[in-house]
Amino acid sequence: MKELTEYHFPEDLKTMTPHEMELLACAIREFLINKVSETGGHLASNLGIVELSLALHRVFDSPKDKIIWDVGHQSYVHKILTGRANQFDSLRQFGGLSGFPKSYESAHDVYDTGHSSVSISVAAGMAAARDLKKENYDVIAVIGDGSLTGGLAYEGLNNIGASKSKVIVVLNDNGMSISPNIGGISQHLGKLRTSKGYLGAKRFVKDRVASIPNIGKNIASGLAEFKNDLKYSIMDSGGVLFEELGFTYFGPVDGHDLEALIDVLDRVRNLNEPVLVHVITRKGKGYRNAEKDPGKFHGIGPFDRTTGVLKTRSEKPTFSSLMGKFAVDLAENDPRITAITAAMRDATGLGLFAQRFPERFFDVGIAEEHAITFAAGMAKSGMRPLVAIYSSFLQRGYDQLLEDICLQNLPVVFLVDRAGCVGADGETHHGIFDLSYLRQIPGMTVLTPKDGNQLEAMMKYALLLDGPCAIRYPRGEADYDRQICSVYSGKNIRTLEPAPGSQCIDIWAVGTMHQCGEEVCRLLKEHGYRAGLVDVTCVKPLDLALFREDCKLLVTLEDNTLEGGFGEKMATELASASEHEKHRLVRRTQHSRILRFGWPDAFIEHGSVSQLQQKYGLSPEKITERICEEIEGKA
Amino acid sequence: MKELTEYHFPEDLKTMTPHEMELLACAIREFLINKVSETGGHLASNLGIVELSLALHRVFDSPKDKIIWDVGHQSYVHKILTGRANQFDSLRQFGGLSGFPKSYESAHDVYDTGHSSVSISVAAGMAAARDLKKENYDVIAVIGDGSLTGGLAYEGLNNIGASKSKVIVVLNDNGMSISPNIGGISQHLGKLRTSKGYLGAKRFVKDRVASIPNIGKNIASGLAEFKNDLKYSIMDSGGVLFEELGFTYFGPVDGHDLEALIDVLDRVRNLNEPVLVHVITRKGKGYRNAEKDPGKFHGIGPFDRTTGVLKTRSEKPTFSSLMGKFAVDLAENDPRITAITAAMRDATGLGLFAQRFPERFFDVGIAEEHAITFAAGMAKSGMRPLVAIYSSFLQRGYDQLLEDICLQNLPVVFLVDRAGCVGADGETHHGIFDLSYLRQIPGMTVLTPKDGNQLEAMMKYALLLDGPCAIRYPRGEADYDRQICSVYSGKNIRTLEPAPGSQCIDIWAVGTMHQCGEEVCRLLKEHGYRAGLVDVTCVKPLDLALFREDCKLLVTLEDNTLEGGFGEKMATELASASEHEKHRLVRRTQHSRILRFGWPDAFIEHGSVSQLQQKYGLSPEKITERICEEIEGKA
Repeated sequence: MKELTEYHFPEDLKTMTPHEMELLACAIREFLINKVSETGGHLASNLGIVELSLALHRVFDSPKDKIIWDVGHQSYVHKILTGRANQFDSLRQFGGLSGFPKSYESAHDVYDTGHSSVSISVAAGMAAARDLKKENYDVIAVIGDGSLTGGLAYEGLNNIGASKSKVIVVLNDNGMSISPNIGGISQHLGKLRTSKGYLGAKRFVKDRVASIPNIGKNIASGLAEFKNDLKYSIMDSGGVLFEELGFTYFGPVDGHDLEALIDVLDRVRNLNEPVLVHVITRKGKGYRNAEKDPGKFHGIGPFDRTTGVLKTRSEKPTFSSLMGKFAVDLAENDPRITAITAAMRDATGLGLFAQRFPERFFDVGIAEEHAITFAAGMAKSGMRPLVAIYSSFLQRGYDQLLEDICLQNLPVVFLVDRAGCVGADGETHHGIFDLSYLRQIPGMTVLTPKDGNQLEAMMKYALLLDGPCAIRYPRGEADYDRQICSVYSGKNIRTLEPAPGSQCIDIWAVGTMHQCGEEVCRLLKEHGYRAGLVDVTCVKPLDLALFREDCKLLVTLEDNTLEGGFGEKMATELASASEHEKHRLVRRTQHSRILRFGWPDAFIEHGSVSQLQQKYGLSPEKITERICEEIEGKA
Repeated sequence: MKELTEYHFPEDLKTMTPHEMELLACAIREFLINKVSETGGHLASNLGIVELSLALHRVFDSPKDKIIWDVGHQSYVHKILTGRANQFDSLRQFGGLSGFPKSYESAHDVYDTGHSSVSISVAAGMAAARDLKKENYDVIAVIGDGSLTGGLAYEGLNNIGASKSKVIVVLNDNGMSISPNIGGISQHLGKLRTSKGYLGAKRFVKDRVASIPNIGKNIASGLAEFKNDLKYSIMDSGGVLFEELGFTYFGPVDGHDLEALIDVLDRVRNLNEPVLVHVITRKGKGYRNAEKDPGKFHGIGPFDRTTGVLKTRSEKPTFSSLMGKFAVDLAENDPRITAITAAMRDATGLGLFAQRFPERFFDVGIAEEHAITFAAGMAKSGMRPLVAIYSSFLQRGYDQLLEDICLQNLPVVFLVDRAGCVGADGETHHGIFDLSYLRQIPGMTVLTPKDGNQLEAMMKYALLLDGPCAIRYPRGEADYDRQICSVYSGKNIRTLEPAPGSQCIDIWAVGTMHQCGEEVCRLLKEHGYRAGLVDVTCVKPLDLALFREDCKLLVTLEDNTLEGGFGEKMATELASASEHEKHRLVRRTQHSRILRFGWPDAFIEHGSVSQLQQKYGLSPEKITERICEEIEGKA
């Protein structure tokens, strides 16, 4: 058998025998396990979708036909089948293959996805464009059952169902989002999963109902009256929900039966209406370790392929795991505390909380908007919810933060995880907008811990506030010393005094950028400058008590976009006329200037955090260099 | 009969006879028509919900039982029934009764609503809190069928259905959002509406199916096998969609039959599970003019109650109507142009477009996220969508703007209507955040026309861009002179030259604030100062070509929150060290300071725009006064 890199995909798929395709599926699984065990990445979902990806590329003509991969992290097989097998050594590395569909990589990536539940709306748009232009191709949205809990997916279904436009929605149902699924829709799918399927139901109609010789007059009239419902009954409860929304439902189909998949996709290709194909797959399929623990292999670092054990395991805790621990500690003593997550129980660190307080733990599925408004309802009724959501996904709830939480000044604590640069997941997942969008919301307190001790103290502090609070912290490890009992008071902290006078340089570093600030101060000292350093723990409300009036050069460091970020806020303080300042502590010296460091006004690609910091001038060395240039007038 | 203000509501409701309640319903309608014809407000939806509000307050014990009014503009009857009839003369006026539920007004307003589709999630949160605290009361979400197209409503349903918690969702189905409804869910409701209803279905089961003596063996086994589905059949197709999501469905019920309403609410009150009560109402019920044209009477200014004609009708066009006209003009010559609205066809001015190009017009219902991602799909397939959404509702799509539109640099034009202060609708509806949240999105062009001519030129300009563009403009009238053929080039425009030298004052006014800027310049002249004036047409990318190096005092005017707004961006330019500036045109003079005018970092209440400007120091007089104080060193 050829190497995967030697095929001419997707063309070669068209002529393969069923047996060859089965072999190819095995080879792809082998390839995925090998490659991802080296690079890390999203494994379990891709192992589950091998046959489905093969069937889609066999039946449809990509890129003429448009396949849209919801969320996008399950596009690895698609990437292999569109000529990118040879790039998998660079998967998710700086300058290498992205872990998500990217139009710039291939014409087969017809739409860049990263966040959940968008594919149906995208397909609706593409189909509408096709119909207006009187073009002829298929549009296929491949969406997981987890993504189906997102409101956007429903809005898309609702619109396509009514439009009668030809769109094929392939529901890849593995019974999981990232955490196991929850919700009415999930229970509905569960029922469907155990039913005998589309072909079985069709056979039933033919064999049984049609052959009944006489039906009592009463029931006959009843059946006639309810013929719409009878249709659903006959279809074995099949997708009545989707049928009601205007889709023709096909399924369930075994997602690891290539022949059945190709058969059903061939059928629906010939229909001219909205269709939903319900495919049952197994997350992690074909790799024992991943089948056993699909959650762990959802997104994983490099691992030993035999044992499934991670290659690098740190002894240090992460911000997430610490948050989970602190949440449990707090909840032990306060029955008002609940915890809410949107399908990220373990990843946000709330697994422990869920075990310890199952009745106070709420996983709402991939539904960030609901998570927030649900928390608002709880808070309005006297509870103190902790809502743990990744920074880039919290973007989904911007309106709810404004209108539901802050407008009513509700005491909800947001644990904004994966804030700042996240590294390998890249442009759709960097949490580099939150300081900007959070600080513009009236009444929101925005805290930025630099380590685990501060996180702990800030969570306590936040629960004492009579209003909303967001605590943002990055992906990864956190310093934490359980001997230190920090108390947080809402103030910034000066950690280094600057040299006074005409060369006064003061560095204000937000949260975890403090460590970078320390290094910059050390490097500046080598150049003969004794800079000051402030640990900015609180981006809003702004605490200016530590501002030095003799400051000549103010430097701000933030793991956030510069546009609308903390640096702009400080710059505004410097430039504002006295009328604005009269109630404040700051008296601007006429010579103070600002140098702001953060991410540029652009989408930042994938790579390691340090590679990206290097590229964008955010390494301590680059920052030091620029400060020196500025002071020495070389700029 | 007593005056409405003389009752002791809601207590007095409890003892009324059916006949007295019918009379009360008439009196309330009379009252609403009288009051709203004087003050303006949301009339049609409130006329439709009179009996339902009466029945809810009769059956449930507010505020112990929590009634949550989705969107909130249909809470007038509720306000009358909770002791606020005497405040209706001040409805929506500065300092007067709000047009939306407000906790600060009454304990009966258990949750402040304003945006659509939140009530179910709120109810879920309140019910969860109740259950954890082992309290005993009912939580009722009253939601319109229009709001049900919003994804958040579905996320809420999905979670409640699975939780098995006791929540009562009352679906107020009038077949309309603001524009007539569209979508699969709407068609589903349409089917239900024509069915014979809950009681009818129950009777059918009892009378017919149960009395059938013999059923053929084959069909009997079939029925047993599909008993779940049979249940839905028997219930007359009743709410199969809601049943699948885990709700017990009751309905449809005639929403103007008080007895039936009280009966069904009494029943569901005794159940201990998620329940959906489907109530059919008529928007505008009881007022002929509103029944005929419920869209016009959705939100209306003061009108003549006999004729239904608006009291003040201007000859001047609005920004919205002009936008609609320009969209048609552009679409005549460019088949790629489509128009998308989220349930605001007429209010955004797209009615004309919908008539002229029905196949290129898409009303997606209340579903802003979908509207944006749908547009992304279209743009990716070569179309040039225009998406018209109100500023405060566009907040719902912040993540989609980032991840779907701008990340892929898709050429979608956003017509951001009702930007800035909107007046009477108040804190939930002011569009004062958009400059902040739009400008922080990489790649978004943000344009701010000051009049209709600029709007026209900017729409043309936006369609020439190879990427996303947002054009934001306020509610209300726009100057427009069809003789003037404006061409827009992406540049700011200087309209007044400042006096040079040590007193150089330069005012940069964003969009429609230019008019205010002109007045400020006139007033300053009276004080002996000749200020400059720049018409800021483009907030992003920032155009600094007109910046005066000798500027002593830079003044920014924006109809936006100061937090993260245009003024901060300009302040940052002033304060930035040279390293940042070296590629720019600005060379900061060491003496330049900034005075920023915009809305404070707070939620702004309702009132007329000029009252609110006055209160918050944004009238030309107040602005002039502060500038003078600053120059004269009195600050």
